[in-house]
Amino acid sequence: MVEFMTETTRRPAGVPRPAGARWPTGPGSAEALVRPAAGGGTGGPAALDGHDATVILERSRASVEPELRAAVASLPASMRRIARYHFGWEHADGSPAAGNGGKAIRPTLVLTAATALGGPPARAVAARAAAAVELVHNFTLLHDDVMDRDATRRHRPTAWTVFGENDAILAGDALQALALGLLAENPHPASPAAAARLAACVVELCEGQRADTALERRAPGEVTLAEVLAMAEAKTGALLGCACAVGALYAGAGEEEVGALDAFGRQAGLAFQLIDDVIGIWGDPARTGKPAGADLAARKKSLPVVAALTSGTPAAAELAELYARPHQEGEEERMTLVVERAGGRDWAQAQAADRMARAVDDLARAVPDPANAGGLLALAEFVTRRTS
Amino acid sequence: MVEFMTETTRRPAGVPRPAGARWPTGPGSAEALVRPAAGGGTGGPAALDGHDATVILERSRASVEPELRAAVASLPASMRRIARYHFGWEHADGSPAAGNGGKAIRPTLVLTAATALGGPPARAVAARAAAAVELVHNFTLLHDDVMDRDATRRHRPTAWTVFGENDAILAGDALQALALGLLAENPHPASPAAAARLAACVVELCEGQRADTALERRAPGEVTLAEVLAMAEAKTGALLGCACAVGALYAGAGEEEVGALDAFGRQAGLAFQLIDDVIGIWGDPARTGKPAGADLAARKKSLPVVAALTSGTPAAAELAELYARPHQEGEEERMTLVVERAGGRDWAQAQAADRMARAVDDLARAVPDPANAGGLLALAEFVTRRTS
Repeated sequence: MVEFMTETTRRPAGVPRPAGARWPTGPGSAEALVRPAAGGGTGGPAALDGHDATVILERSRASVEPELRAAVASLPASMRRIARYHFGWEHADGSPAAGNGGKAIRPTLVLTAATALGGPPARAVAARAAAAVELVHNFTLLHDDVMDRDATRRHRPTAWTVFGENDAILAGDALQALALGLLAENPHPASPAAAARLAACVVELCEGQRADTALERRAPGEVTLAEVLAMAEAKTGALLGCACAVGALYAGAGEEEVGALDAFGRQAGLAFQLIDDVIGIWGDPARTGKPAGADLAARKKSLPVVAALTSGTPAAAELAELYARPHQEGEEERMTLVVERAGGRDWAQAQAADRMARAVDDLARAVPDPANAGGLLALAEFVTRRTS
Repeated sequence: MVEFMTETTRRPAGVPRPAGARWPTGPGSAEALVRPAAGGGTGGPAALDGHDATVILERSRASVEPELRAAVASLPASMRRIARYHFGWEHADGSPAAGNGGKAIRPTLVLTAATALGGPPARAVAARAAAAVELVHNFTLLHDDVMDRDATRRHRPTAWTVFGENDAILAGDALQALALGLLAENPHPASPAAAARLAACVVELCEGQRADTALERRAPGEVTLAEVLAMAEAKTGALLGCACAVGALYAGAGEEEVGALDAFGRQAGLAFQLIDDVIGIWGDPARTGKPAGADLAARKKSLPVVAALTSGTPAAAELAELYARPHQEGEEERMTLVVERAGGRDWAQAQAADRMARAVDDLARAVPDPANAGGLLALAEFVTRRTS
């Protein structure tokens, strides 16, 4: 699962920023919001009606971290240590660390969705649920890192490389239980529905991770674009959607609004994943921290690559040939060009813009008042306008 | 985690069967129940006031399996397949199997506890919670088998050997979510408290498994009896206790009764584990299906072994020496005798009897009417009077 280790600086790979700072009120106006602005989206980063994503994220972290720390403190000592290391609160030796637990975009979505539909009182009662969503996210990170043999997370050695695979798996299991236990213990009337949604989302996340590893094992020619999109929705979109839906539930929203906010989060999540994959190929290595073309060298079946492979162009055939044989050093540049010639980059950017348009549409259905929707829109913008 | 693959036949290793078929009503009478019967406990197997454990188990499986199958049916296809294989409903190729999902002792404890305190109506409303408890148990089995590299479960290849480690981990994750989701979706007023207890129990189960693997890695001389007992309580006792407590909750029981039934299940679980470890050393290979002394050859730090190692006897020193060096073929018989001479067997049997006495005591507190307590007593008897 991908982390949001991002800056708000604008970049060419991102989805064009909504043209206006105001929420249009006319019919069909939601689409207008994602029309590229003249000049390619100049103007201050993510400043929609004063909704600054970095400020929103910072404020959310301040609300959620105490809940998160309290939940982790309830774990038995050994698993608590793994969790505290994973969250960046402690070094491997147990000494306190400055902490880099990621942007915490998911709990921020919970709180921002609650605020959008229920104002500050809803925000206050949703804090524990926001922590539950973040616990679920981190349970999946702990497990995914074991399965994917990923050695680095948030610029530090992954938990399993420090504490061993078994203990990392068990700590992940415990975080899932902690998350759903937090909601079970929460007497708010929204808690059972929130817990049911979060539990169903966990199943979807598991299916997304399973599909991802299964797709990576298959021959490039056997993977369809629909399959990779479905995988990305399950693996990335589902929890972003669930976070928004959970926030809506704590605001006392009805089924329709809850469903619309879930759809908003899913679409924004897909837009994020598309941009993330674009950055994985065309991003500036100085910003991404990864060598150029690393995803191509690893033969990753990212969304732009599968779009390229299934484009029916001559470049598609060339790419398939390249993907079928072992990597040769130095051919990353050629591969990057081939994916681009096959239309992979254009498709991904157009698709991301399309997903963002749908997200904005869903958001307008759930939160008709633009003043209230601004925070969620700024967050969606933020995760799709990254440089690294 | 250990499965209950047992028969009701009586055996010398088991805890002596309660002397009377009636629940004593005088003070201190609970202890009298576990006093060895004259003649070593002859009489029909587990027939207390007509409470036959095998009949209770059979009836429970019939109530719980439809709930379990419905829950598993809601999984995405690939994980459903793994779950259905693991439960013994399907062969690895997806064709239907006769099914051997184990004795289902935990869901049976849920239903029997509910019946003991709330009669048939409570039993009926607890069926879904019973399935949730069984899902949690099977999630831990799937994960433990991966971590312990166990290749066989219920006489079949373990799920990870058939579907791969990653998919087995993900299927386990999904079963935990399914379990807690079942309770979140259940509108019964007991559901939130039941979900909170089950979630807390998952954390304890994880800690038990972690402690188990940690203890197995340590030198035999560094392991204390208190540590192994705490590990066994977390790994085996906690979920048996939780199952009883959940059943009590669905009967509308108060905190004290719920706590007493949790304690009953924990103590019975510890008694079970002690007997299981005794069988692992002194059991008849023809009945256990494992070669004699296999646990000793593997240098397992089971409860009788740690009791022997920490006995301060000359035999303890001899055993420590044997455990410290690599296994030599054929020395199982000598090791078995050394553990026995160091008092490991006597300690384990006395300890199991003591735990059963405490269990009976806890049961009497929660369910004063012997007619209502008979089912739970028969089940506790059943799991501690096994031959294999």
